[in-house]
Amino acid sequence: MTKPFNETIAASNDILTREPLPASQKIYAEGSIYKEIRVPMRKIALSNDTELCVYDTSGPYTDPSVEIDVEQGIPAIRKTWIASRGDVEVYKGRITKPQDNGYNTDEQLEFVTAGSRGLYRTPLRAQKGKNVSQLHYARQGIITPEMEFIAIRENQNRAMTQAYLQDEERETRLKGENFGANLPEEITPEFVRQEVAEGRAVIPCNINHPEVEPMIIGRNFLVKVNANIGNSATTSSIAEEVEKMVWSTRWGADTVMDLSTGKNIHTTRDWILRNSPVPIGTVPIYQALEKVNGIAEDLTWEVFRDTLIEQAEQGVDYFTIHAGLLLHHVPMTAKRVTGIVSRGGSIMAKWMIHHHKENFLYTHFEEICEIMKAYDITFSLGDGLRPGSVVDANDEAQFAELKTLGELTKIAWKHDVQTLIEGPGHVPMHLIKENMEKQLEWCDEAPFYTLGPLTTDIAPGYDHITSGIGAAMIGWYGCAMLCYVTPKEHLGLPDREDVKEGLITYKLAAHAADIAKGHPGARARDDAMSLARFEFRWVDQFNIGLDPERAREYHDETMPMEAAKVAHFCSMCGPKFCSMKISAEVREYADALETDIETAKQKGMDEMSQKFQELGGEVYVSEEVVGRK
Amino acid sequence: MTKPFNETIAASNDILTREPLPASQKIYAEGSIYKEIRVPMRKIALSNDTELCVYDTSGPYTDPSVEIDVEQGIPAIRKTWIASRGDVEVYKGRITKPQDNGYNTDEQLEFVTAGSRGLYRTPLRAQKGKNVSQLHYARQGIITPEMEFIAIRENQNRAMTQAYLQDEERETRLKGENFGANLPEEITPEFVRQEVAEGRAVIPCNINHPEVEPMIIGRNFLVKVNANIGNSATTSSIAEEVEKMVWSTRWGADTVMDLSTGKNIHTTRDWILRNSPVPIGTVPIYQALEKVNGIAEDLTWEVFRDTLIEQAEQGVDYFTIHAGLLLHHVPMTAKRVTGIVSRGGSIMAKWMIHHHKENFLYTHFEEICEIMKAYDITFSLGDGLRPGSVVDANDEAQFAELKTLGELTKIAWKHDVQTLIEGPGHVPMHLIKENMEKQLEWCDEAPFYTLGPLTTDIAPGYDHITSGIGAAMIGWYGCAMLCYVTPKEHLGLPDREDVKEGLITYKLAAHAADIAKGHPGARARDDAMSLARFEFRWVDQFNIGLDPERAREYHDETMPMEAAKVAHFCSMCGPKFCSMKISAEVREYADALETDIETAKQKGMDEMSQKFQELGGEVYVSEEVVGRK
Repeated sequence: MTKPFNETIAASNDILTREPLPASQKIYAEGSIYKEIRVPMRKIALSNDTELCVYDTSGPYTDPSVEIDVEQGIPAIRKTWIASRGDVEVYKGRITKPQDNGYNTDEQLEFVTAGSRGLYRTPLRAQKGKNVSQLHYARQGIITPEMEFIAIRENQNRAMTQAYLQDEERETRLKGENFGANLPEEITPEFVRQEVAEGRAVIPCNINHPEVEPMIIGRNFLVKVNANIGNSATTSSIAEEVEKMVWSTRWGADTVMDLSTGKNIHTTRDWILRNSPVPIGTVPIYQALEKVNGIAEDLTWEVFRDTLIEQAEQGVDYFTIHAGLLLHHVPMTAKRVTGIVSRGGSIMAKWMIHHHKENFLYTHFEEICEIMKAYDITFSLGDGLRPGSVVDANDEAQFAELKTLGELTKIAWKHDVQTLIEGPGHVPMHLIKENMEKQLEWCDEAPFYTLGPLTTDIAPGYDHITSGIGAAMIGWYGCAMLCYVTPKEHLGLPDREDVKEGLITYKLAAHAADIAKGHPGARARDDAMSLARFEFRWVDQFNIGLDPERAREYHDETMPMEAAKVAHFCSMCGPKFCSMKISAEVREYADALETDIETAKQKGMDEMSQKFQELGGEVYVSEEVVGRK
Repeated sequence: MTKPFNETIAASNDILTREPLPASQKIYAEGSIYKEIRVPMRKIALSNDTELCVYDTSGPYTDPSVEIDVEQGIPAIRKTWIASRGDVEVYKGRITKPQDNGYNTDEQLEFVTAGSRGLYRTPLRAQKGKNVSQLHYARQGIITPEMEFIAIRENQNRAMTQAYLQDEERETRLKGENFGANLPEEITPEFVRQEVAEGRAVIPCNINHPEVEPMIIGRNFLVKVNANIGNSATTSSIAEEVEKMVWSTRWGADTVMDLSTGKNIHTTRDWILRNSPVPIGTVPIYQALEKVNGIAEDLTWEVFRDTLIEQAEQGVDYFTIHAGLLLHHVPMTAKRVTGIVSRGGSIMAKWMIHHHKENFLYTHFEEICEIMKAYDITFSLGDGLRPGSVVDANDEAQFAELKTLGELTKIAWKHDVQTLIEGPGHVPMHLIKENMEKQLEWCDEAPFYTLGPLTTDIAPGYDHITSGIGAAMIGWYGCAMLCYVTPKEHLGLPDREDVKEGLITYKLAAHAADIAKGHPGARARDDAMSLARFEFRWVDQFNIGLDPERAREYHDETMPMEAAKVAHFCSMCGPKFCSMKISAEVREYADALETDIETAKQKGMDEMSQKFQELGGEVYVSEEVVGRK
């Protein structure tokens, strides 16, 4: 079990997926207020000499000009921004203990830390009396570089993409239903500041995670997606653990939660953080439980607090904390079909019942706030009583906890600590909206972050889809971030392909939500795709899509020839029977028809019929002619 | 190309998938009005000695006691029902022409018909002046055997399944939102008759398809799913073509559309019909176009009419007919991004423009009605102008055609012809409801039958999911049948696995819709699953799910040992960290807690805390103990 860890930590950077996506190039937009900021975007080159710019979560990994060595970590782009605010101090930091990695002796500790020596950084914290949270700055009226970065990023280079298909009739017809969200035509840095100041959006960015590319979570911005990863049973190299995060961000993860348990979790977390361009979230109670050998009732505030400091110094950007689950909520779950399904929730329930005391995360909540604001860690207030089946949805227990989360939000905001609210879970379609409405009301519009929700329980193996339906809907209603579900949910641990499948499903759900809300510019990518379809630009269709590899693979299965990529027909109908082609021909006639239709009524149908027959005799283009086109 | 067809038509019945699904047994419920009817259901045996009954579309193929030979076809269960009504006549029927199979000489015809000689049946039609449609009977106040069959089938053996988790608080909390649908606690034969009489539901069942197990499509019944199949480029055996249909019904297809084009389509259709337990739909204009060598402008009413008779005599249960697309609608599509994407729509548009005449399907609509009622074929009024991209959704062209479909519905109903209305397509989430509302209003609640709709265009390779979202939503809003979309949509032809993936996606979407509508009994299967989850009955979880094979496979990837199937923990958390297990422990305490909590307030927390510590010391069950359980 305790194999010589230092012998197996070889970096092997070549494990990392580094190729840009097809036809894609990383570009960087510059700031106006802060000239030095460089906001990454992915530019997709199309075959008709136009291009499409899309939001890019993949960090430097898809930029071939950046050299990456996982033992050094990726560039710390926020380092100077943080330092220049003059409110942080370098300090010695907590001493890493063997228990942080699940060991009992110093010898094992040595093995473990040997692997991350190059990654060690002296931690920062707020100077005494200071608060370094983005919420605090926002409320002071300060626009930070993080905020300008986000404003540019959220606009997705709209000027470029909005060239697509602007048409008044269309924009009126497709106008979104936003349920009270506020989606301005252009996201300004000041708008970002206001949203953060109001608590309606969060920017998860621990001062000890300077590598992060700032992003925002709030219902007036693009809907975001989180992916969960965990450590391997036997960690074999830094790069392997880092690759899980890289792979997730490649397919669109806006944040990643490290849900590792067991051995080496401290060190693995170091590796991930030093190499992650996206915010990293954790559930600190998992590690705290490891430190007390898995015995929930042995948990103490001191062990938990120490774990918060440990992870704060490493740079974790947001903490799931189940502080809203109270002692008197527990009996409310007794009549449930699936009881308490949240791991954190069940741990705290067990602790409370055993000690017959109130949840220590609740009683120490203000102390936790003090830690959060010293590092700018965002709360993700956990829903320990989320339903584990559609039959338990929206019950007394779930909503009692949600109300408490609302009270805690006010306390967090009193400390200028950024706050997300976690939500379900399993909810039938008709009860989803109630979740969003109650959350907005009770938590004063703090951003909602849900797991799915799954809309039925009868399809294990397809729960990315049962939950993708609920995710798209709640995203439309106002949910700010969707935690992905993979096809392995309820059955096993996801592999690489499952992670990708889960992410693409959630990206399309989030995007469907953006379109339905009427997020300006969101439809540009759809319109680019539709134009490519109508014009038979097959390669563009692959490249514009969320998964260019699969699209090409599926197309090639039916039509493998390279010539088919430029064919003016598709495999479904073949060259003689293509509705898109016929439709293009129809269009040519439509103008003439519209003009002539009145004339026809006067002159009589027969005469016109004759005329159109003459015109139409040559409409049909034979297979060969098409092939030569 | 014209290989000797008669040499390759070997039946090879062993190609057919015949095994029942795991732990499943076909049972038959008997009628009360009509004692001879036997309504198939699938009974799933659970490991706790209970059982679950589910709707079963798979026909005799999953009943090992039925011998099946594709050259003979499956039992004609409706034969005596049809005959006993005394309103049909046997007649010589149309003579099959080489052109029906895409050939020009009689010699080839001989090859083709040789293969289906055993299947040939003399056709039936209504006696002169009679109308044999279920709508006609319903309006006469007649409850047919088909109607009683459906009533029993729709109830899904509710008495058995409703034993699950009946609880007043739950039923109130989970009460569906049905948007005006009428979902009685029990479906009676009289209710079925009324719904058919009102035109709110259809029973597609051509008198020449006596093999069909009657099913109903209407918003006051379970949401149904259609799968499309097509012939192979080179047909090699009857069984291979039949197996596509068998495979679809195995995974839940309530109806199957045969969209074959090219050679041998007449014969293939014979094979499918004689072996299909589900209604078969077609788009007759496809075959008519073949007969005029693919030249749309050469289509005539006579060729089309002849094709209708041909397919009517074979037993096709519903026809997609694009009669609502009118000449003056065509210019409305000119400004669209993706024009006309329906094949049938583009064919008719081309014909109309060429001839500058009104759509002959519209001008001959009453003549078509005469054919429909002579065989009881259901109209599926095609939406030739459905949008092909989200940007074209809900536009003038689409809704103009929908209005015309409403007018045609009234004409069809004047003839007592059953009628479905087809719908989109590609629609962003926020515009889906408008489709349903307009359809209900303009088409007087005739059942809606939509393709998806896709809620975004950016995920080729995942369009079963982009459309599954829209399908679940429109099913909830009132759509009666959902036409599936496979992962290959827009890219290529689906293979066997794609068909299954598409079907499971649509079955879960339809089921999520049933739950959201509050369909009585729909949640029973979810509740059975949730109970099995909470009680760690792994094998039951696999078997209750829509895809037992995949669920088991995914579970085995992580925990392959047979012992894991009875383990009281799952792979995600492992034995020491299982929230479900903790939750079960919590429940034991909850009762005590509830009683004692008031006492505690009086006696003081410290004393109680002591008591619970004593109790709690033994709560944690070690890994070994769990293993031995």
